[in-house]
Amino acid sequence: MGEEMIHDTASFGSDVKMGKYVKIEENVRIGNNVTIGDFVIIKQGTEIGNNVIIGDLTILGKAPAANSNMARPVEKSLSPLSIGEHVVIGCNTVLYTGTIIHKGVFIGDLASIREKVIIGEESIIGRNAIVEMNTTIGKQVTIQTGSYITADMLIEDHVFIGPCCSTSNDKYMGEGNYRHQGPIIKQGAKVGNNATLLPGIIIGKHAVVGAGAVVTKNVPDNQVVVGNPAKLLTII
Amino acid sequence: MGEEMIHDTASFGSDVKMGKYVKIEENVRIGNNVTIGDFVIIKQGTEIGNNVIIGDLTILGKAPAANSNMARPVEKSLSPLSIGEHVVIGCNTVLYTGTIIHKGVFIGDLASIREKVIIGEESIIGRNAIVEMNTTIGKQVTIQTGSYITADMLIEDHVFIGPCCSTSNDKYMGEGNYRHQGPIIKQGAKVGNNATLLPGIIIGKHAVVGAGAVVTKNVPDNQVVVGNPAKLLTII
Amino acid sequence: MGEEMIHDTASFGSDVKMGKYVKIEENVRIGNNVTIGDFVIIKQGTEIGNNVIIGDLTILGKAPAANSNMARPVEKSLSPLSIGEHVVIGCNTVLYTGTIIHKGVFIGDLASIREKVIIGEESIIGRNAIVEMNTTIGKQVTIQTGSYITADMLIEDHVFIGPCCSTSNDKYMGEGNYRHQGPIIKQGAKVGNNATLLPGIIIGKHAVVGAGAVVTKNVPDNQVVVGNPAKLLTII
Repeated sequence: MGEEMIHDTASFGSDVKMGKYVKIEENVRIGNNVTIGDFVIIKQGTEIGNNVIIGDLTILGKAPAANSNMARPVEKSLSPLSIGEHVVIGCNTVLYTGTIIHKGVFIGDLASIREKVIIGEESIIGRNAIVEMNTTIGKQVTIQTGSYITADMLIEDHVFIGPCCSTSNDKYMGEGNYRHQGPIIKQGAKVGNNATLLPGIIIGKHAVVGAGAVVTKNVPDNQVVVGNPAKLLTII
Repeated sequence: MGEEMIHDTASFGSDVKMGKYVKIEENVRIGNNVTIGDFVIIKQGTEIGNNVIIGDLTILGKAPAANSNMARPVEKSLSPLSIGEHVVIGCNTVLYTGTIIHKGVFIGDLASIREKVIIGEESIIGRNAIVEMNTTIGKQVTIQTGSYITADMLIEDHVFIGPCCSTSNDKYMGEGNYRHQGPIIKQGAKVGNNATLLPGIIIGKHAVVGAGAVVTKNVPDNQVVVGNPAKLLTII
Repeated sequence: MGEEMIHDTASFGSDVKMGKYVKIEENVRIGNNVTIGDFVIIKQGTEIGNNVIIGDLTILGKAPAANSNMARPVEKSLSPLSIGEHVVIGCNTVLYTGTIIHKGVFIGDLASIREKVIIGEESIIGRNAIVEMNTTIGKQVTIQTGSYITADMLIEDHVFIGPCCSTSNDKYMGEGNYRHQGPIIKQGAKVGNNATLLPGIIIGKHAVVGAGAVVTKNVPDNQVVVGNPAKLLTII
């Protein structure tokens, strides 16, 4: 352990396996049997439960930043990043402060998750996936590799989102002085790879969005939509 | 400061906040009030203006590389990477040499920007966004998260590109012994999320490309296109 | 060289240029004239041929991990990561154990490649591209920036895949208790940018998939398909 990198207010459970060149800041709390990779940065106040695995070259608890041209100001007083038991975090990931990752979640390499996000138990965030601020993700949700989950979304339990899906929350594309609203994906819905969801769209319970579909209207419960623009699939 | 990692030809303004394990190479010039994260590499000759913030695990001034199967040879004599005042750069980013980032630009985490790119004042390059070589981006442009900006593009001022957009510059897909040409996006145009732009396409001033559209022909000024292939939206 | 980071069972050829803060684990074998960047982690058993270049902040030989909600269990006994001569690897990349990268391959920044992948000679894996487990890629294949290559794919020699393409291998989207099958892309085929390929689809020899196409059926040899769903392009 490179002692000079560990702040003396940090606390550690038993059996913490520390990588090389780990930086741990003020008031970080680390549980029992946690494995920390090499070149990892754990920012101030981050709370890590028991049996967590953290990949190499990863940043936990980053504070948001902005420039003068951003749609919304940066939040100042965020709670710490909280990581539950048995969470597995990949390499080269960036997780922000103010976010809660519940137990058993898996986060792939090169993923990034912004502030004020909640991720429910045993959900999967694939490699290179991105979750924007203020989004809530339920339990046992799968968000596959490379998908983009915009801000202000609600994704209910057991949803499956295939690889490379894209969502948006800004129907005036930067013009707006109005409330942004991301899509809402109801329980058990499935979204095929590289699908596109427009702002505020509701995908109903157990609905299916086909691969490559461009969803411009709400999809009712249990229905299947495909195409651009997406239309109900009717069995003839 | 890990002194052995700072080359003695590097120069520093006042009030530089240096992270842990920062490597700074020959002839790097750093302005006043610059904040540098942990595990950052600043390659030779890079010039950084006043009040810049650089995230952790980031590389500034990378030289291009290639293999024998590449479409174009690597440029040998590039000017240094130049970063203007008040630029904010995220974590795990890779910025190449020979590129100019003007003042007030924001670059998100996990983004990468190749050589010979120019980015105008106060523009935003989202997280995981990629900008290829030789592309010019105007002022107050927004390129949202995960978008792919190919080589040889021109993006004028105040353009808005939604998340996960894709562009291309090679209409013969690797066959060609001809000049590549990326799309041209004129002033104030807006491109919806996950749209696809074909090589050499011109998007007119204040035109709008719908989310998920596949743009195979030029879009006139002030017009809206949607669909695959994209067609003019006509209000009935 | 930070000696405490180099395991004493690692072996080195002549003329190895070592970056700062490189961690090299047990039984790593490194050839002649290899260049290793800064903050690089080379995991146990990795084999690196002569004249290889490895970018900064890169991880070679990562072991797979999983959570309880994953579709398939983690393989336990994988062979080491093997990297052939003259391979060039970018910065911030993650390559897994059990994978073979043949000579002259180029891997861009921020790319990641899972276990049990084979990449043939002189192929290119673009920046931010992702290759899932168990996929075989031929010689002189180009996979452009940001493309997603799913598990269980076969990509034959001389294939060209444009930027931001998406593939999938799970037609029941997480429901299934059946064998996954990724697309098969035959020799010399070309896939345009942001195209979507469904599970098990076969793209014929020298076939062309247009940009943004959503391919739901097999494409015969030498044919061109465009649209959503993709249809044969007929010249009138």
